[in-house]
Amino acid sequence: MNRHVDNDLSDLKDLLLSMGGCVERAIDEVHEGMINKSEKHFDRVREQEKAINKLHSKVDKKCLRILARQAPVATDLRLVLSVVKINTDLERMGDQCMNILHNARDYMAAGGSEVPKEFHEMKRQVRVMVKTALDAFVRQDLALCRDVLDNDDVVDDFRNQIVDSLKLKMKSNPDEMDIYLHLIMIAKNMERMADHATNIAEGVIFVITGDDIRHGRSMTEPS
Amino acid sequence: MNRHVDNDLSDLKDLLLSMGGCVERAIDEVHEGMINKSEKHFDRVREQEKAINKLHSKVDKKCLRILARQAPVATDLRLVLSVVKINTDLERMGDQCMNILHNARDYMAAGGSEVPKEFHEMKRQVRVMVKTALDAFVRQDLALCRDVLDNDDVVDDFRNQIVDSLKLKMKSNPDEMDIYLHLIMIAKNMERMADHATNIAEGVIFVITGDDIRHGRSMTEPS
Repeated sequence: MNRHVDNDLSDLKDLLLSMGGCVERAIDEVHEGMINKSEKHFDRVREQEKAINKLHSKVDKKCLRILARQAPVATDLRLVLSVVKINTDLERMGDQCMNILHNARDYMAAGGSEVPKEFHEMKRQVRVMVKTALDAFVRQDLALCRDVLDNDDVVDDFRNQIVDSLKLKMKSNPDEMDIYLHLIMIAKNMERMADHATNIAEGVIFVITGDDIRHGRSMTEPS
Repeated sequence: MNRHVDNDLSDLKDLLLSMGGCVERAIDEVHEGMINKSEKHFDRVREQEKAINKLHSKVDKKCLRILARQAPVATDLRLVLSVVKINTDLERMGDQCMNILHNARDYMAAGGSEVPKEFHEMKRQVRVMVKTALDAFVRQDLALCRDVLDNDDVVDDFRNQIVDSLKLKMKSNPDEMDIYLHLIMIAKNMERMADHATNIAEGVIFVITGDDIRHGRSMTEPS
């Protein structure tokens, strides 16, 4: 077997980790910007998103080159295919940060003042999920993948609590409806980031075990 | 070159088209269910979504097998990689139909009666985008890809108009807030389906030209 592929796969992992770092920073910066009403932080989100997009194209190009030149098989092939998908998930997380940024700015423009404290904990959970999913990828660690999948339910619960509480506030303060609507959109965007982290964990499980658990069945089952 | 790959790629295209057909039917059925308040139509959405998920796993497995056994290159390789991504987009569209179903049921439970007529035209546009994206894929037709990209702006405008109009209604009828909130979520889910159709068109452009237009730059540019 041609083990030049090892160097290529190692480069690919490094690129994906750089991208993950950008996503983590974008999550931090958009949250800081929202809390502190700070354009400086929002500018940094935009910078991170540009970097994410650049890496997105680069990772796809690298995967294509590895498949064309090395024709990897078995675990190596599953790794490259999973990177293609993880790459998409990370890029979408960048988009979600930009969506949050737009909603946060509209929230401020509509007169929103203090972001409800539940958002801090939800952001923390999402951030942990992204970091854990990337750690699971680097270490090829099934236990970490399971942690991510478990945390997804926690984030869903957070989202439901936040949305329910915001709906009640909307009803008692219809004049501030726009403010609460933007917060609901932010909570939904955060929950979608958690979904992408879950996709990454499922991708890592596929690399390690060859099992496709996305729809509750194995890829080794009869098709 | 091993042209066994031609048969495999042809099978792969057929699988993806079957999946696209399921997505189109799911869009029709969820809309009918919403308009007619009919559980019968919602049951059919659930059936289509199950079929979509089954095909999703099958297509991924087939792509993996083609890459492992045939080691395709150039256009064939780009085609397989694009199918991996289009497969994800179609599966997510199935998820969106299920999200619309849940919101439509909550909308009815909250006392919602007639669905605003703008939804019919928005659904029609989204349906056209999905069909055109799949036609573009089958015929490998750049002009059809461009049609999809142009239509995405039309759907975005629809979503904005619908959301603005619903917000006004919410303000004048705060008691019916839940009803309008569910409709806003449905409009947002429909717009996300249009985004997935756009992703498919971008993927087809990549197969035909080798150009990655997703972030406004070419994959042949220096990295």
